[in-house]
Amino acid sequence: MEELNQHELTKEFLDGFRRAVEEKDETYIKVSLEDLRHADISLILEEFDAQESHYVLQLLPPETAAAIINDLDEYVRTEFLKDFSIGEIASYIDLLETDNGADILNELPIKEREEVIGNLKNEEKAKYIVELLRYDENCAGGLMAKELVKVNLEWTVIQCIDEIRRQAENVEKIYSVYVVDEKDTLLGRVSLKSILLSNTRDKVKNIYDPDIVRVHTYMVEEEIASIMQKYDLEVLPVVNVHGKLVGRITVDDIIDVITEQAEQERQLMAGLAEDVEEDDTVWLLSRARLPWLVIGLMGGMIGARLIGVFEDVLAQVTAVAFFIPLIMATGGNVGVQSSALVVQSLAARLAFQDTLLQRIFKVFLVAIINGLILSSLVYLFIFLTVDATLALVVTTALFSVVIIASILGTIVPLLLDKIGFNPALASGPFITTTIDLMGLAIYFTVAHLLYEAI
Amino acid sequence: MEELNQHELTKEFLDGFRRAVEEKDETYIKVSLEDLRHADISLILEEFDAQESHYVLQLLPPETAAAIINDLDEYVRTEFLKDFSIGEIASYIDLLETDNGADILNELPIKEREEVIGNLKNEEKAKYIVELLRYDENCAGGLMAKELVKVNLEWTVIQCIDEIRRQAENVEKIYSVYVVDEKDTLLGRVSLKSILLSNTRDKVKNIYDPDIVRVHTYMVEEEIASIMQKYDLEVLPVVNVHGKLVGRITVDDIIDVITEQAEQERQLMAGLAEDVEEDDTVWLLSRARLPWLVIGLMGGMIGARLIGVFEDVLAQVTAVAFFIPLIMATGGNVGVQSSALVVQSLAARLAFQDTLLQRIFKVFLVAIINGLILSSLVYLFIFLTVDATLALVVTTALFSVVIIASILGTIVPLLLDKIGFNPALASGPFITTTIDLMGLAIYFTVAHLLYEAI
Repeated sequence: MEELNQHELTKEFLDGFRRAVEEKDETYIKVSLEDLRHADISLILEEFDAQESHYVLQLLPPETAAAIINDLDEYVRTEFLKDFSIGEIASYIDLLETDNGADILNELPIKEREEVIGNLKNEEKAKYIVELLRYDENCAGGLMAKELVKVNLEWTVIQCIDEIRRQAENVEKIYSVYVVDEKDTLLGRVSLKSILLSNTRDKVKNIYDPDIVRVHTYMVEEEIASIMQKYDLEVLPVVNVHGKLVGRITVDDIIDVITEQAEQERQLMAGLAEDVEEDDTVWLLSRARLPWLVIGLMGGMIGARLIGVFEDVLAQVTAVAFFIPLIMATGGNVGVQSSALVVQSLAARLAFQDTLLQRIFKVFLVAIINGLILSSLVYLFIFLTVDATLALVVTTALFSVVIIASILGTIVPLLLDKIGFNPALASGPFITTTIDLMGLAIYFTVAHLLYEAI
Repeated sequence: MEELNQHELTKEFLDGFRRAVEEKDETYIKVSLEDLRHADISLILEEFDAQESHYVLQLLPPETAAAIINDLDEYVRTEFLKDFSIGEIASYIDLLETDNGADILNELPIKEREEVIGNLKNEEKAKYIVELLRYDENCAGGLMAKELVKVNLEWTVIQCIDEIRRQAENVEKIYSVYVVDEKDTLLGRVSLKSILLSNTRDKVKNIYDPDIVRVHTYMVEEEIASIMQKYDLEVLPVVNVHGKLVGRITVDDIIDVITEQAEQERQLMAGLAEDVEEDDTVWLLSRARLPWLVIGLMGGMIGARLIGVFEDVLAQVTAVAFFIPLIMATGGNVGVQSSALVVQSLAARLAFQDTLLQRIFKVFLVAIINGLILSSLVYLFIFLTVDATLALVVTTALFSVVIIASILGTIVPLLLDKIGFNPALASGPFITTTIDLMGLAIYFTVAHLLYEAI
């Protein structure tokens, strides 16, 4: 990997580094981190506690230290910054881009936040950060950075180059140069390539591209992510309600949004109540798992009462109990499959021509096909191993469960999405518990009715 | 939305457009698509069949038509291109970037593929595409495009600008200019910003940045995605084993990789066997769901046999049947939670300091805490509603199931990952079925032993 210029975190390196930190061997620490990128140092520091990391950071160039603080996971950072003075935090935020600075400030308690803002040296940055703090974290306003290069429509190419030179230090990656009028209304963009290939006396208005995709400050992150993906963009300008250019969102932030969405969805599907990771504490991990386990448990207890109601059926035909697992497992599987398909459509924001009724009709058809195939297999199995009556009971119940689980699994995520919840919740323990109980109720009712009738 | 320059697909628009296509109203079609971006037209065409779309494409500028073909989903495109002649396909591939051209060719039957390559007008592109076809689709070589701008270390800035001008038409987005020696060995990069701000007589070797992250042709897409995310890059140069620059990977392709990974994981977790979407045919949807449902069904049948073995216990104490759902649901929930955590760690490629044993020990601790809490609740419930013996039976089984499901849920995804399967498979029906059966076996064995003993 060495030749690829990427740092590999070995146990040997970490052991040596840990010893150096304990012995406060400044030279060793400085030398071993010298050639590393900040993202690599961040990974190393996650293995150390707040005081130790604080000590290491002070030995690094301030820009690198600021970038490392920015790299940290929100939860790690909150712990980490407790060891820092207000002045120190302010000095690091002075070195970060405005969007990242605002994110870190957002995580601080309100009093500290105000104090840090008061301590920022860079006044323009302080003003920008205060502006960004007004926006909700999950909308375009909360994602955007104020750092960008804008030029006036009436300028010449040489004026653009001067402006780029003036902003070069503030704007690390330029991507596009935005074209505005005197009121800062966004009119279009001009690429660095066109600036480079144009005559220096050319006017911006003759080389700019007025066809530009933009987003509004209030648009939510999912919407922005899908626009960026659809048009293959790496940067999106943000305008306010008057069309004024107020910031830009870069693709790295959107990749984070996409990754977080996938992670959140996985946790909901798996029934984890908090954003935990395997290396969190035992206590945190237990706590994240318990709520959904308890809901499942309550479902199980209700199920027990429900079966209890039909005790006479069980006493009459013990074999009815044999197929409880089959009914439950199939109902759960069908429900999860159905909801996953809906969640996927919602995530891809597919342009659905189908109305809700058409959609349910289709789900219904699929359920009938699968229900028939599964029921036939089960009928054969029970007919051969037990008897025809039980075979009829189980297959009738199984078929109904497949249909109901399909429809519930389709409607519930749509409903959740409509009322503003994450639809992936519908693949989690709550819905599977519901489907389990419905399955049991159907199974025992059918059994009760059929055995009564015979 | 109009003012944001994004097209909203309305039913009115689609109805009007559909009528125009049926009546072959060329002017209407051309006018209504004129101001749309290709990504928007692609969405519209997904509502039409192959012949209709083909007809519409012929009315568009060839560059737009090529971009639309490139936008299409792989499955849609395969159907779609059946209506096209070899010459037509070749003419569109001539207008696409090499990586996209190679992807489309990869989807064609081998004979057609060769014919299309033979019909390409742009000889350099044909050579590049043939080179790209050698690589596996899921590695850096398969993801990269040949379009890039490279300059020699010894050149001056003015020579760089000339090279950019020469390549301007081929390379739509430049991102970085790569610096190489005479043998094309990648030495570093120089940003358009530095070129723009340097004196035209400056030498490349004085302004370039030798610190550049690169990937090898053989690296797999997950690895590339994680490198791009870690270092916040929007483009990555690809080198061969000799360090020679052979292509570059852009962030839009990596976003697709991340999205596909999340989608694939969701499908595995939900037990869908094929890459299906809600708007696929009823038949395709049934087929994708059946394999896992049948596995679950087989699990249910084995479960039935297993309970049958313990029929005497059931005959003696019917109430044992009441708690089958509780045991099964809890086992399943715990198993899915555990595997989701492991899948998440694997996806995030966290640098784990813990050994497998440490990891399992921690999982064990969490399981003991949760097992104790859940068992206490259940003991209380059964003690109050049934009796102390059954309470003891169920809680003993429940506690064991929580422990075993935790450990299985941790080990199985790690094992799957090790032997090259997607670990998310471990949250799917296969593992939940296994845990269900183990839960039943434990429950009935405990019940059998305890009731025997009494």
